[in-house]
Amino acid sequence: MTTPKNQHSRTLRGGIDLGGTKIQAVVLDPAGKVLGSARRPTPRTGGPRNVVRELAATLSDAAKAAGTTVPELGGTGVGTPGSVDRERGTVSNARNLPGFDGAVPLASLLESEIGLSVELGNDVGVALDAEAQLGAGAGCGSFIGAWWGTGVGGGVVLHGQRWLGRGAAGEIGHTIVKKDGARCPCGLRGCLEAYAGRGAMEARARKLAARGRRTELFDLMRKKNVERLTSGVWAKALERDDRLAHKLVDRAISALATALASTVNLVDVEAIVIGGGLGSRLGQPAVDRISSEMRPRLFRPDAAPPVRLSALGDFAGATGAALLVRTRSSVGAPG
Amino acid sequence: MTTPKNQHSRTLRGGIDLGGTKIQAVVLDPAGKVLGSARRPTPRTGGPRNVVRELAATLSDAAKAAGTTVPELGGTGVGTPGSVDRERGTVSNARNLPGFDGAVPLASLLESEIGLSVELGNDVGVALDAEAQLGAGAGCGSFIGAWWGTGVGGGVVLHGQRWLGRGAAGEIGHTIVKKDGARCPCGLRGCLEAYAGRGAMEARARKLAARGRRTELFDLMRKKNVERLTSGVWAKALERDDRLAHKLVDRAISALATALASTVNLVDVEAIVIGGGLGSRLGQPAVDRISSEMRPRLFRPDAAPPVRLSALGDFAGATGAALLVRTRSSVGAPG
Repeated sequence: MTTPKNQHSRTLRGGIDLGGTKIQAVVLDPAGKVLGSARRPTPRTGGPRNVVRELAATLSDAAKAAGTTVPELGGTGVGTPGSVDRERGTVSNARNLPGFDGAVPLASLLESEIGLSVELGNDVGVALDAEAQLGAGAGCGSFIGAWWGTGVGGGVVLHGQRWLGRGAAGEIGHTIVKKDGARCPCGLRGCLEAYAGRGAMEARARKLAARGRRTELFDLMRKKNVERLTSGVWAKALERDDRLAHKLVDRAISALATALASTVNLVDVEAIVIGGGLGSRLGQPAVDRISSEMRPRLFRPDAAPPVRLSALGDFAGATGAALLVRTRSSVGAPG
Repeated sequence: MTTPKNQHSRTLRGGIDLGGTKIQAVVLDPAGKVLGSARRPTPRTGGPRNVVRELAATLSDAAKAAGTTVPELGGTGVGTPGSVDRERGTVSNARNLPGFDGAVPLASLLESEIGLSVELGNDVGVALDAEAQLGAGAGCGSFIGAWWGTGVGGGVVLHGQRWLGRGAAGEIGHTIVKKDGARCPCGLRGCLEAYAGRGAMEARARKLAARGRRTELFDLMRKKNVERLTSGVWAKALERDDRLAHKLVDRAISALATALASTVNLVDVEAIVIGGGLGSRLGQPAVDRISSEMRPRLFRPDAAPPVRLSALGDFAGATGAALLVRTRSSVGAPG
């Protein structure tokens, strides 16, 4: 009997989620099932060349886990932060990536490295596409995705498709929840991200700790041997009932609930999907709290849409990246 | 030479905008041009029967002004506040209309009165449709409409069509601009309408005046022989440099700019259209201020969409109501 691997040969797709801290790769079968996955840290130095080498290595690990090899894939997609020019295969403004200045020709660099065709997409955008097609948004004509991580990304899916506007739609993190409120990392005031972005939450925690507020957050961080308040650190601090951690997570949830309520009042979608590092890590209890804090802020609280946790979790971005391959390569449509 | 009126016979459409204070009727030619218009006050008593009689009389006045008669029209549309069931021809929750309790069969009541087929639509919705087809949104694939009047209504037009969501989309007035902020007439806190709705502005002015704040607003109201702070009263008070009026209009504009910025950050539309009684009355200077206060709140201020004044002004609602006829009657498509 032939192994399934050989049957699938060249109908399998690679997908890579390139983040500021980690690279996540998957290999998908034609139905969108993850056959293998791998993860590596994102290089902190060495510029695009180094990052490309790690992308290739992570994809190779995922292919191995799926019982195949990179050359046997039908192509790969990459979800990346920053502004993607899909036609040109370039990434700009990816400030979290080492040495990514100007427009980096990431697609051609990776193509030369692995000998496969490469499609680029925006990281949050492709994650949302994956949830729309295979995850918590499947079967929904419309939903709002809020990707709760270092920042708060997201988007609006209407008629089953991401609404792109003039190309820059989806900045739910820059919904102003408090006019003239807290300064956001983006420079504006009162944005959702200024209260709920993990980056802004950490900045606030550091400020309050420096003023003498007691918290275990930074001890937990050092114990985990990390330099930032990762989602895992926040989860652990909540578990240990750290008061400051609770206070800042409460504040984030309240801001998320406010921004989502405003959006529902305007576009009246069928569902809300919460993803991202912090969303996935804090999971269903946080999602339930967002839901119950959103309801009393709705114009029609009796018609509140369900708030769901991302179904694809840590694989959403890489899965969405793999789905980019479907539309442009010669690989057949999934079964 | 035959008169144009006879050529148009039965290809002309009536449109009526039924508001809480006035009824505005128009007769449109097939290209959407207003051939005649009329206005009457909305009855304060007498229930639906009285309102229907005035709708008929106003339409008759408009037909006369257009050189025709009601029986010669191809049909009429009515834009009304409240929730419209278009198939059933009923209106519910139209609290501003006298004796409109439960579901009022407005279409059949008016049909019996005038002997024409009647189509119902939501007042702000049809006004937005009119701006999309014939007004400030014509040629725009996507725009946000904010109807600034007693409340703040509006909606989002995407792919040239009003986005309805699950049926309740468009409540831009209930975008929360200040978490836990001022109480809105809808019961929520911090909504745009709590700062910018003419109703909320009047309530605030009364409260501050009762506390001893000096203002000419209520003298102007009495001079105009009205019982409420109409758009005309606000405009006059600004003209006379009334400090409280300036303060409350500034606050409203700042709230409008905030809500619109959030919406642009999320859906990245091509334009914004400002209409409604207060919007039309305060006109271009107010629109320019909304635009300049919105820009610094945008995630991409360099790509700010233009903010435009409604092109159809006081006729937007009645024109949109007339456009309802096109899609369902046997009247031919406009030339």
